[in-house]
Amino acid sequence: MTKKHEVAENKDGVSRRDILGGSVAMSTLAIGGAAAGVAAGAAAGVTLAPKAAQADESDKYNVAPGQLDEYVGFWSSGQTGEVRILGIPSMRELMRIPVFNRCSATGWGQTNESLKILSEGLTPATRERLAKRGLQTFQNGDAHHPRPSVTNGSYDGRYVFINDKANTRLARIRIDVMKTDKIIEIPNAHSIHGMRVQRYPKTGYVFCNGENRAPLVNDGRDLDDPKKWGSVFTAVDGDTMTVAWQVLVSGNLDNCDTDYQNKYAASTCYNSEEGTTLEEMTSSETDHAVFFDIAAIEAGVKAGKAETINGVPVLDGRKSAKSPYTLYIPIANSPHGCNATPDGKYVVINGKLSPTTTVIEWAKLDDVFAGKAEPKSAIVANAELGLGPLHTSFDGRGNAYTSLFLDSQVVKWNIDEAIRAYNGEKIDPIKQKIDVSYQVGHVNASMSETKDADGKWLVALCKFSKDRFINVGPLKPECEQLIDISGDEMKLVHDGSTFAEPHDATIMKANMINPLEIWKRDDPMWEDARQQAAKDGVKLEEDNKVIRDGNKVRVYMTSSAPKFGIESFKVKVGDEVTIIQTNIDDVVDLTHGFTMVNYGIAMEVGPQATSSVTFIADAPGVYYYFCQWFCHALHMEMSGQMLVEA
Amino acid sequence: MTKKHEVAENKDGVSRRDILGGSVAMSTLAIGGAAAGVAAGAAAGVTLAPKAAQADESDKYNVAPGQLDEYVGFWSSGQTGEVRILGIPSMRELMRIPVFNRCSATGWGQTNESLKILSEGLTPATRERLAKRGLQTFQNGDAHHPRPSVTNGSYDGRYVFINDKANTRLARIRIDVMKTDKIIEIPNAHSIHGMRVQRYPKTGYVFCNGENRAPLVNDGRDLDDPKKWGSVFTAVDGDTMTVAWQVLVSGNLDNCDTDYQNKYAASTCYNSEEGTTLEEMTSSETDHAVFFDIAAIEAGVKAGKAETINGVPVLDGRKSAKSPYTLYIPIANSPHGCNATPDGKYVVINGKLSPTTTVIEWAKLDDVFAGKAEPKSAIVANAELGLGPLHTSFDGRGNAYTSLFLDSQVVKWNIDEAIRAYNGEKIDPIKQKIDVSYQVGHVNASMSETKDADGKWLVALCKFSKDRFINVGPLKPECEQLIDISGDEMKLVHDGSTFAEPHDATIMKANMINPLEIWKRDDPMWEDARQQAAKDGVKLEEDNKVIRDGNKVRVYMTSSAPKFGIESFKVKVGDEVTIIQTNIDDVVDLTHGFTMVNYGIAMEVGPQATSSVTFIADAPGVYYYFCQWFCHALHMEMSGQMLVEA
Repeated sequence: MTKKHEVAENKDGVSRRDILGGSVAMSTLAIGGAAAGVAAGAAAGVTLAPKAAQADESDKYNVAPGQLDEYVGFWSSGQTGEVRILGIPSMRELMRIPVFNRCSATGWGQTNESLKILSEGLTPATRERLAKRGLQTFQNGDAHHPRPSVTNGSYDGRYVFINDKANTRLARIRIDVMKTDKIIEIPNAHSIHGMRVQRYPKTGYVFCNGENRAPLVNDGRDLDDPKKWGSVFTAVDGDTMTVAWQVLVSGNLDNCDTDYQNKYAASTCYNSEEGTTLEEMTSSETDHAVFFDIAAIEAGVKAGKAETINGVPVLDGRKSAKSPYTLYIPIANSPHGCNATPDGKYVVINGKLSPTTTVIEWAKLDDVFAGKAEPKSAIVANAELGLGPLHTSFDGRGNAYTSLFLDSQVVKWNIDEAIRAYNGEKIDPIKQKIDVSYQVGHVNASMSETKDADGKWLVALCKFSKDRFINVGPLKPECEQLIDISGDEMKLVHDGSTFAEPHDATIMKANMINPLEIWKRDDPMWEDARQQAAKDGVKLEEDNKVIRDGNKVRVYMTSSAPKFGIESFKVKVGDEVTIIQTNIDDVVDLTHGFTMVNYGIAMEVGPQATSSVTFIADAPGVYYYFCQWFCHALHMEMSGQMLVEA
Repeated sequence: MTKKHEVAENKDGVSRRDILGGSVAMSTLAIGGAAAGVAAGAAAGVTLAPKAAQADESDKYNVAPGQLDEYVGFWSSGQTGEVRILGIPSMRELMRIPVFNRCSATGWGQTNESLKILSEGLTPATRERLAKRGLQTFQNGDAHHPRPSVTNGSYDGRYVFINDKANTRLARIRIDVMKTDKIIEIPNAHSIHGMRVQRYPKTGYVFCNGENRAPLVNDGRDLDDPKKWGSVFTAVDGDTMTVAWQVLVSGNLDNCDTDYQNKYAASTCYNSEEGTTLEEMTSSETDHAVFFDIAAIEAGVKAGKAETINGVPVLDGRKSAKSPYTLYIPIANSPHGCNATPDGKYVVINGKLSPTTTVIEWAKLDDVFAGKAEPKSAIVANAELGLGPLHTSFDGRGNAYTSLFLDSQVVKWNIDEAIRAYNGEKIDPIKQKIDVSYQVGHVNASMSETKDADGKWLVALCKFSKDRFINVGPLKPECEQLIDISGDEMKLVHDGSTFAEPHDATIMKANMINPLEIWKRDDPMWEDARQQAAKDGVKLEEDNKVIRDGNKVRVYMTSSAPKFGIESFKVKVGDEVTIIQTNIDDVVDLTHGFTMVNYGIAMEVGPQATSSVTFIADAPGVYYYFCQWFCHALHMEMSGQMLVEA
């Protein structure tokens, strides 16, 4: 265990405090990277690992074999492009839901059903570009902020929304079947980062931060004139998954959140300088948070004040426009996290490069928007918490938990006390700091983003694991740590290793979701197959038929452990073959699959579900198909042959 | 917790014993599937869950925060197509290694380096077919049996090999960097299932079972003449990753193993009937195991006895050929697992449809191959263990642990006692049965497949989880359970949920691997980029240069937290752009990434590594690239712009 501290040493032997000079403004921190020798992993790594004494505490947090977790979490996966479901406190990964990624196991990105979802929400221009590459969709994503839908301030168990920073998309997952059902590309914006959902009366809007400044009509114009580029805040209608409206803003939109009344939304912004290089982007000591007046925006759109760009109404909310839609409040350099308190009163803006966290009172925005008060008057606290505050979560008992990226700590502080301190009272709102390993990004507490915040568990999602786990080569796992926040003292109880990147997570009581055990036959997921079958006179759950339609061959087959309804079929080389498979087993957990050997074809077919895949029979010969989802003692014998005539 | 037992009920209310009639031959089991109502998940689910009393036992098996696992396991992922590294006993998933799958996070399947590995080992015909689809490789796999390389009977820390059942491939992972470095398509064979490595003097051969019977030259001939189809056993040279030789066999090859002397290899076979439908494949009560005389095969190839098919020497080892290469020993219906004992004496053949497990003594094969003894004389035990024996593992103390798929149990039994019982002694070799949940497939014990088997941990890889975890929809996680086998009694200590499919695993002492923390600059992985850079007069780790070569643009850039060496470059629409990025940070865990927004481009660049990706600049406009592997407090600011002129 001594190795840990060796690895954690800054390579130059310079302590973090030496470099940072205590709680200084850090706008010049490490620009130049290796030259300055303060890549974050090294610089902040001198934070000590949790004391061994804490290890014994964790025993009682075990979820023993056969026991179920009390909480469930929706985890993003960053650049892996999927959403994960975890159980808490076991921290077991219960499911991967493919979203933006290509999934070998389920055929996500290959089945006709998934390709429709992955392609139909793209802009026509994007579809056309991808078609030239032989693709119907992108094959990667960068999934950051999973957010379940909310009704009246708490989770309603309908959907989980997730953004794609890589290819400027928003996806929706149906909680009833835990599958993605809609993905849209957001026009005009460039790279969706922050994302949050409307809390009242329900979701409703899904707010999406366009991070990068680019030409709104990005067709080659204004390449050399960054002043004409812009960032766009988007409200998507979460029910229809269409863009409701957009607002052009100043600076790079980072994270966002909204209140509990549907009056205001807020976004942090970095690069208020509107530069294009790192030096330009960090030259000022001040950036801002931007607030959106939702009713004013809706009225502006209704009154025809918006310009329609790529089919979407866009309002000008930039600083220079002095519009009624937006309000800019100056915040110290590069604010990052943006988190509404569960009591509905405040939003907490986290400093990142400033050691401070700023509390803004939603109610005070009324006067500022009305021009009756200065923007800064909405600030009710400015707590100095530690180095690199990124995100804040809440326990519903008035305490906040802020991640300190550079300190590799989570700090617990009291919001009311921070407000009293800001008002001059001699009081320290900081209750406790706990070491986390290492370089923590998001933190999120159970139910924290609802009015029912219950302060039981907090996850700290760490960007570096270094020596926390067995060395598995140059690429290390990330480290997600579980902290018990139910008592006066935070207790670290679990290290979870995970593949890139547990960017953010939302944790709710497990009994707030109620997914199906078995698919319903009338599910809309395979509506196209249903319609085609009707045209072909085929009953999906009964018939096993091969239908030839010119050079198109549709193979309708059932699967029932351990047998496919069709064990052999013949086609001609060059035929376009569509396999439409219906799993007629109605046993819980009895998923079948269809893999065509040497054809690169594989798909999942859940109990009572239909899945389909289309391919060209591009090689003559005998090709076996088999069930790749273990189903029966005779699972290996569950196969058939496609005979392709030369 | 009552729900568990409800769900586990057979839907027809018929008990498993009623259906199976005790230890009957099960060749007719459930053929017809739903009609017979005995899909395995339901039928065998009546096995009870582990007693609650065991829960308390598990506390002491916790790996507390900051503690490291003592063992490391290489896990296959079935149809997910990757290999996973787990820590034991924590059962943490430490890393996903993309192999046959497309990985959004690392760019595996998109970077030039990975595409070379994924495509160069395909047959020319396959490459040509895929090229017509716009692909350079398959995008899915079915990874079953991960096996680390062995020297002198124990792990040598060089490689892990993994088969692809879906597209008939074998892959190799370098343990020093935990990345796949070679993938080959096995010609003539159809669907690689069983796979094991040579143990002495070293790996050496990687033995690959071609499961399905198909025409050896599979070009459309003999479509309607299954009698002319065959299965092929392949020996790959693990050092060069080329096929050494193949042997044509009778029946469908299932699992395989080899001895500790490099004299013999063994494979179980189902479908000795050589049928093509489920009824035909299971019509006989007897199948066989086939044994390979490695020296005889090598001599046969050397003597020119092999026919060269698709560039590979193929010997005829079918029953009908009565060759010196193979030996067929009759085994009850559909034997499955094939496991060599760590003392080097025996191989255990698991019955699957028969409740028996057969022990064969390697040394007795000498006389059988020499024609001096009957095939059955090599059988030294035939233990009746329970229903659905699939795989056996060992503790190095003379005990064996066999998975019982239908009983959902692991049975511990003593090999010597089984032999004595077979010889007529009144002795029961069965020591204990433990319930596992549910429908266990592979089991594997720590170090079990080496001469250093140490009998500490056993993983039971279960095909169904049903109610073991929170309901996450129709698709359930699989369940991998950890059993402490160090004492007289097996103890279930951990339920691990996992995405499809923890098909098989190999567990070794963690100190037997020693991966690099940071890449070496002379790594062969980016040799092509190194050579191109030399031609372009570019030093990868120093230069930031854009080189135009006709309509090809090569962008050489370094990355050092938090900055790319190039923050803006300009190309023309239609240009072929190659990004060659070198991570010049030398800090442990400081991986960078490169994502091009709205271009579907993303790749990992490890510390001191070079990665490259090539794409057509197919859309004019401003496109940001950013680092998607968190690296620094100013990580979000680590970006640049590709300006694409119309």
